[in-house]
Amino acid sequence: MPDAEGHPEPREMELRTILAALSDPLRYEVVSALLAEEPETARHCSSFGLPVSKSTRTHHFRVLREAGLVRQVDRGNSRMATLRRAELDARFPGLLDLVARNQPPDGDRASG
Amino acid sequence: MPDAEGHPEPREMELRTILAALSDPLRYEVVSALLAEEPETARHCSSFGLPVSKSTRTHHFRVLREAGLVRQVDRGNSRMATLRRAELDARFPGLLDLVARNQPPDGDRASG
Repeated sequence: MPDAEGHPEPREMELRTILAALSDPLRYEVVSALLAEEPETARHCSSFGLPVSKSTRTHHFRVLREAGLVRQVDRGNSRMATLRRAELDARFPGLLDLVARNQPPDGDRASG
Repeated sequence: MPDAEGHPEPREMELRTILAALSDPLRYEVVSALLAEEPETARHCSSFGLPVSKSTRTHHFRVLREAGLVRQVDRGNSRMATLRRAELDARFPGLLDLVARNQPPDGDRASG
């Protein structure tokens, strides 16, 4: 079962839940940005420059976390996020490659 | 631009729109069912046994059509749907393989 933070184990991940998480433009942008980093890079959740309130950002990261796309950890007063790249590649081969090959166009935020 | 029926050309298809279309359990089921058929198979939109009203079914097929996942054609009094398999494979390599490898579990409809 998911841990106390809501991170599912790989076998609990559902493709459809992941697709739903990725269907939002800001969440897609977060995953795209993490894909552009070195594997295992941990970034502050505030570092993505999402044009939303802190509570909305928290919501988006919760959706990403509960789908299994990101792992969140606390470091001191900061909340960091890493892409669960190896686990996702093993569970859903091709998924992250698909996202990596399909960066949204600039200015795409407004269309979502 | 999309044709009069709302079918986008392949270059107009957007991955995120496709992911959103697939994030619904019934729409995912339709695409999964078409993937299990021979390529180019055309099926009546009523043949999928979706447990919804005709107007809701029409809505779901419109979402699939406008995302670029299915092509709908009229044959006499019937509305038929085919998966745009070759175009999707060319535009988003790996996408349909991912869906084909991840059939939803039985009884999954209720969870969506």
